[in-house]
Amino acid sequence: MLPAAVQDYLSVRREEHLDRLIELLKIPSVANAGGQSCRHAAEWLAAALSATGMEVLLDGPADRPAVLGEYRAGEDCPTVLWYGHYDVQPPDPLELWESPPFEPIVRDGWIHARGSDDDKGQVFAHLIALEALLGCGGLGLNVRVLLEGEEEIGSPSLPGLIEKHRRRISADAAVISDSHFFAEGTPSLTVALRGLMYAEITLTGPSSDLHSGVHGGAVANPATALAALLAGLHDENGRVTLEGFYDEVRPLAEADRLAWESLPFDERALAASIGVDALAGGERDLPALHRRWARPSLDVNGLHSGYTGPGAKTIIPARASAKLSARLVCDQDPEAVGESLRRYVERNTPPGCRSEVEIHPGARPVTLDADTPHVRAARAAMAEAFGVEPVLVRSGASVPVTELLQRQLGLDAAMMGLGLPQDNIHAPNERMKLDQIWLGSEAAAAFYLRLADPLQ
Amino acid sequence: MLPAAVQDYLSVRREEHLDRLIELLKIPSVANAGGQSCRHAAEWLAAALSATGMEVLLDGPADRPAVLGEYRAGEDCPTVLWYGHYDVQPPDPLELWESPPFEPIVRDGWIHARGSDDDKGQVFAHLIALEALLGCGGLGLNVRVLLEGEEEIGSPSLPGLIEKHRRRISADAAVISDSHFFAEGTPSLTVALRGLMYAEITLTGPSSDLHSGVHGGAVANPATALAALLAGLHDENGRVTLEGFYDEVRPLAEADRLAWESLPFDERALAASIGVDALAGGERDLPALHRRWARPSLDVNGLHSGYTGPGAKTIIPARASAKLSARLVCDQDPEAVGESLRRYVERNTPPGCRSEVEIHPGARPVTLDADTPHVRAARAAMAEAFGVEPVLVRSGASVPVTELLQRQLGLDAAMMGLGLPQDNIHAPNERMKLDQIWLGSEAAAAFYLRLADPLQ
Repeated sequence: MLPAAVQDYLSVRREEHLDRLIELLKIPSVANAGGQSCRHAAEWLAAALSATGMEVLLDGPADRPAVLGEYRAGEDCPTVLWYGHYDVQPPDPLELWESPPFEPIVRDGWIHARGSDDDKGQVFAHLIALEALLGCGGLGLNVRVLLEGEEEIGSPSLPGLIEKHRRRISADAAVISDSHFFAEGTPSLTVALRGLMYAEITLTGPSSDLHSGVHGGAVANPATALAALLAGLHDENGRVTLEGFYDEVRPLAEADRLAWESLPFDERALAASIGVDALAGGERDLPALHRRWARPSLDVNGLHSGYTGPGAKTIIPARASAKLSARLVCDQDPEAVGESLRRYVERNTPPGCRSEVEIHPGARPVTLDADTPHVRAARAAMAEAFGVEPVLVRSGASVPVTELLQRQLGLDAAMMGLGLPQDNIHAPNERMKLDQIWLGSEAAAAFYLRLADPLQ
Repeated sequence: MLPAAVQDYLSVRREEHLDRLIELLKIPSVANAGGQSCRHAAEWLAAALSATGMEVLLDGPADRPAVLGEYRAGEDCPTVLWYGHYDVQPPDPLELWESPPFEPIVRDGWIHARGSDDDKGQVFAHLIALEALLGCGGLGLNVRVLLEGEEEIGSPSLPGLIEKHRRRISADAAVISDSHFFAEGTPSLTVALRGLMYAEITLTGPSSDLHSGVHGGAVANPATALAALLAGLHDENGRVTLEGFYDEVRPLAEADRLAWESLPFDERALAASIGVDALAGGERDLPALHRRWARPSLDVNGLHSGYTGPGAKTIIPARASAKLSARLVCDQDPEAVGESLRRYVERNTPPGCRSEVEIHPGARPVTLDADTPHVRAARAAMAEAFGVEPVLVRSGASVPVTELLQRQLGLDAAMMGLGLPQDNIHAPNERMKLDQIWLGSEAAAAFYLRLADPLQ
């Protein structure tokens, strides 16, 4: 049970909270879009944290700084680090949004906007929880805050910031809300995340587009060559062909396999909800949940070459490029996978074409210790707020900070995801159910209280 | 020798001609761009033809009508049909042009603009030749003119127009200048053209872009599937795998093989001029000229899927599409090839994806009779104007009207190409050497005169 004043702050003033959430969601803080929007979002959050009495500073790139906050309860009190991010995915393709991505709107209990789930909505739940706790008599817990603005572009500045502010960020435990329930009504704590290798391949042929009639059949076509390169990355069983790709992948433990069988996973309903007739990607003959959580994958994220306007244009394109990314598990190393890709592309670039591979910042896969006081506190807090005992799950996605906190600070985070699988994150029409934010803020408050007083 | 007045008109007034050519090139008559630019170009040409005393009418689509012109010398005189087109290729990618595509500029004796070669420059040469002839005492030859505005989009209205105006268009011979010299200094008459099958393949997966972490490995990726489809269209020897593709392809005649060996074809220089290290596309172990002229080919002309902006976006794209086209020879039928492609795509669309194939208007391959009075007249006229005996060549490109005139009217055209291979047609920085236009107009005038009086 939350103290009455805390409960009141969170549940009675929802209209006021919603107005502020809308204000935050209106800021188009796309990390790689340039401009001052990310800084604007950072300043908005810094002001809100300052108002709770926290000491706040901005550091990192001036146009997308991290927000660091600190509430000091006392040296004898335990310390928690809360991480979130305020940057969001690019909103395109814009034409598929039912309402503009940065004009938040509530429909049937859901708020629709880019970032409504990932991660501003979840950040907002923690923010108002801390406002409630610190505004209603304080908390016997040192709270440290790290809200970054580069999560969606691979957190390039984060390792340096963590190192630089090591003492300001160190804690006994960390909490991150940047994931989601296994299903609506099934609160979940995430205990493993896949890693990420992101690359861009460019094949260059002739110095400019050529007439495909005059030259067709006598000049290597970069688009055709790119297609062959990409096609060769999977074998007929859906396995990735990159040299050494599976070397560090271990089989799934029997205990996990059994636990996952009891999860309410309806493959057909999921397929229908995303508009496909079957969950057909990845390795053949493995259950979909294993492919998402326990197996690596490789996806083309974007393709571009030649003429893409309406009608016909008969050219041999001068270049063709693809963005692609691999999700990694166990001890797979994004750098090693990137190097393997580089070698593959080099070896398979046909005569008449030149190739280039650019590797973007990646993330290592991470497995978290679930048997810790803060994970127990998070489970209890989620059960209290949502009325259902949470399950332990994995995520196919990457939250690079999780691995950085583990590697740089020795901190295994409690991953209290507040989103729902149907929130369309990274896609048009991103949304979040408002109840998930309101009950999520109660869960966050309960979590901080339990850490402050483990006997509660 | 041209009559002095004709020669004077063509050579003394070049400055004035150039101003008018620039006026014509400024009109951005891209066939599939919408707007009134094509009509504007048609009206410009109609006015110029009317001024010579021709009877002129516009017919066909209102926004890109064909221009039909007729000069009546008398029922006893022979009749020639001159065909050209005023529509041009789309100019993108715009950023690769050294000067804007519709702001013609002369540099070092070349005029730079979209359409400067293909086909406005070549059309202009005939126009001023007819102005000279008809303005200097007339001509013992009925001249019929057909200038269309849909050549670059596959001439969808042309068969109907030819049928409708059958009597107005019929002739003893036809001439087309929409091709090029084999090399600078080597005038050429084209006696065979490849055909064209143009298609667009779209693969659709999930109903919107998905998070590639959450879903990666469990959802079929349309971009990956498209790459596999495209890669499968060629085997390891560069041969097209479509069922029945080579059924109607005949081996090259020994006489042609020998004649081509004596052509001044410098494979290395060509490779260097287009910026590649080798002419490496198409079927392995065949000479480049055979692959361009005597063999069919298949090229990807455009690719689009998912996120193509700067930086990273981790999605499984909802759809992926490719434009692709095949060049056809001998008796290959574009419709049959299109159907074979349709079946291939259907058979190879993986579970979890849906596919769609759209076939654009195509063109049949064509072989022209070179042993006719008008081809002999064209050879003599070219030799006279350029001072070198022309060679007989083929072209890898398609000029659909050639096949239509043959099939619908029984007319084998004389293809007096006036462009040069280095004119960058269908590419950024299209240009034409002004001398090719000026001497080309003399060749055109000589051609019409020879037809009027075969004994000349």
